[in-house]
Amino acid sequence: MIRIGIYGYGNLGRGVEAAIKKNSDMKLVAVFTRRDPQTVKLNTEGVKVFPSVDVKSFVDDIDVMILCGGSATDLPLQTPELCKYFNVVDSFDTHARIFEHYQNVDKNAKESGKIGVISTGWDPGMFSLNRAIMNAILPDGNDYTFWGKGVSQGHSDAIRRIDGVVDARQYTIPVDAALESVRKGDNPKLTTRQKHTRECFVVAEDDADKARIEKEIKEMPNYFADYDTTVHFISLDELKKNHSGIPHGGFVIRSGETSDNTKHVIEYSLKLDSNPEFTGSVLVAYARACYRANQRNESGCRTVFDFSAKDLSLVSYEELLKHTL
Amino acid sequence: MIRIGIYGYGNLGRGVEAAIKKNSDMKLVAVFTRRDPQTVKLNTEGVKVFPSVDVKSFVDDIDVMILCGGSATDLPLQTPELCKYFNVVDSFDTHARIFEHYQNVDKNAKESGKIGVISTGWDPGMFSLNRAIMNAILPDGNDYTFWGKGVSQGHSDAIRRIDGVVDARQYTIPVDAALESVRKGDNPKLTTRQKHTRECFVVAEDDADKARIEKEIKEMPNYFADYDTTVHFISLDELKKNHSGIPHGGFVIRSGETSDNTKHVIEYSLKLDSNPEFTGSVLVAYARACYRANQRNESGCRTVFDFSAKDLSLVSYEELLKHTL
Repeated sequence: MIRIGIYGYGNLGRGVEAAIKKNSDMKLVAVFTRRDPQTVKLNTEGVKVFPSVDVKSFVDDIDVMILCGGSATDLPLQTPELCKYFNVVDSFDTHARIFEHYQNVDKNAKESGKIGVISTGWDPGMFSLNRAIMNAILPDGNDYTFWGKGVSQGHSDAIRRIDGVVDARQYTIPVDAALESVRKGDNPKLTTRQKHTRECFVVAEDDADKARIEKEIKEMPNYFADYDTTVHFISLDELKKNHSGIPHGGFVIRSGETSDNTKHVIEYSLKLDSNPEFTGSVLVAYARACYRANQRNESGCRTVFDFSAKDLSLVSYEELLKHTL
Repeated sequence: MIRIGIYGYGNLGRGVEAAIKKNSDMKLVAVFTRRDPQTVKLNTEGVKVFPSVDVKSFVDDIDVMILCGGSATDLPLQTPELCKYFNVVDSFDTHARIFEHYQNVDKNAKESGKIGVISTGWDPGMFSLNRAIMNAILPDGNDYTFWGKGVSQGHSDAIRRIDGVVDARQYTIPVDAALESVRKGDNPKLTTRQKHTRECFVVAEDDADKARIEKEIKEMPNYFADYDTTVHFISLDELKKNHSGIPHGGFVIRSGETSDNTKHVIEYSLKLDSNPEFTGSVLVAYARACYRANQRNESGCRTVFDFSAKDLSLVSYEELLKHTL
């Protein structure tokens, strides 16, 4: 059994916990939190919660630590620090800073003889893996990535910061016409506005100026100004009843030519009821690959580009040959 | 430059030849054929055709030999034999005999210190790779594979063997209702008939009994009897004009749960203008991985389950981290 620790117990931590239960070669050993452990209730019988500052005393008890903190401030510090002591897996998703993060983790993991797997999940993660393989197979072509339909946490938070807003949920929605054009192999040049629309469900304070809120959302730079955005004002009850899930998904499509006028389209898509539970499931599969790599005496930073399907698989290689190939 | 040889120059051999031109790190060195080399005209300037019996004199000139023979009788003998001298890649696709083929190639490749990559292409190949990864991520779920719309060579050949048939083309078509049910995560139990239909375009001899031919097709065991089959009689001109391509494609879908009532659907699909050109492109990407594995002093049989995206990629790891992750 691969002994797993969870470091950070929010939505993603609970997603990892759920995923561990679906994998018969793993068990959850401990959860670490910055909160008072007494206030944290797990979904797994018999497993204890510890203060995050005590983590180093578990070096002999945990094979892989799965880091479930945020990419803005947690993971840039936690992953390089914890890979001094543990094999670690994270879901660092700030694309622009991935190379820097890689170098920080690689240096410390090589010194400690551990493996640090960074930026797993679905994007970065499964989408990146598919982009890389699609490009290797069809080198003469174009990639397209569409996200949604799904809840964007960052955009929902941005709306919540507007004066007069009680709560909000933002959905990113791919534009069907753009998707269809890409699937036909048209290789269109698409603007931001042509690829996705944004739909917002907003709970406003009773006396708030809704016209002003809607204007502030639609004109918000980076977040909404470049998109066709729809704003719906709803009650808090409606928000809780109809928008409490965290669904997401998306599409990676590559179209390319192998000779003149001979086109091919490869598409990989996800439709997820729960973004954190699916992300947690990917992290757990990479925890297995991480453990196996370290068992082979490898060390350093790794990404989805480094592992084979054999590394990830719960079933034996012989089973894969006989039943999956 | 990775120096490639092509062994067998039919549709697949020409597909591999086209793919090599799209990969800047490879060059075609020689083509081997059982036919009279004088009668074979390549699509690559300056490359020569040699009799297949002379292949062993090229051991120092070729880094990877791509085998483009058939799975029924060619590859079971050729791949184990040629991996005694070369790194080889094949597209062996007789699912029931893959494990036996693996063992034969593994033994000889280990003795010669070469790498033999078997059963690449799209199914087996990309579809197998995706099934394995999807299973690792969503261990609690079901897989579905649909083929088409596309030309099935084996089924077309079966029709051609019927008395009174001049030529024929058979399309395998996935049933939309089945695809939609799977995509919704319904986890349906589907019979053969519910998954695919078969559409046949047949050119009959002038005096042939068309009713008898149609009956023979529709009742043919294994090939057609378990399917809803449609037969169209057309002229040879129509067949040449409208059915000369070899398009294919298909869908691999896995739906699974990560907790009660929390479902996820992963889908990988291909839409191919030319089955042999796409298959050739996959073989060429695995030729790169094969070469790299052998450069690392590895030997033995390998499949799509053994390689990472890094092994397959034409671009550097740093490029992948910066632009693809």
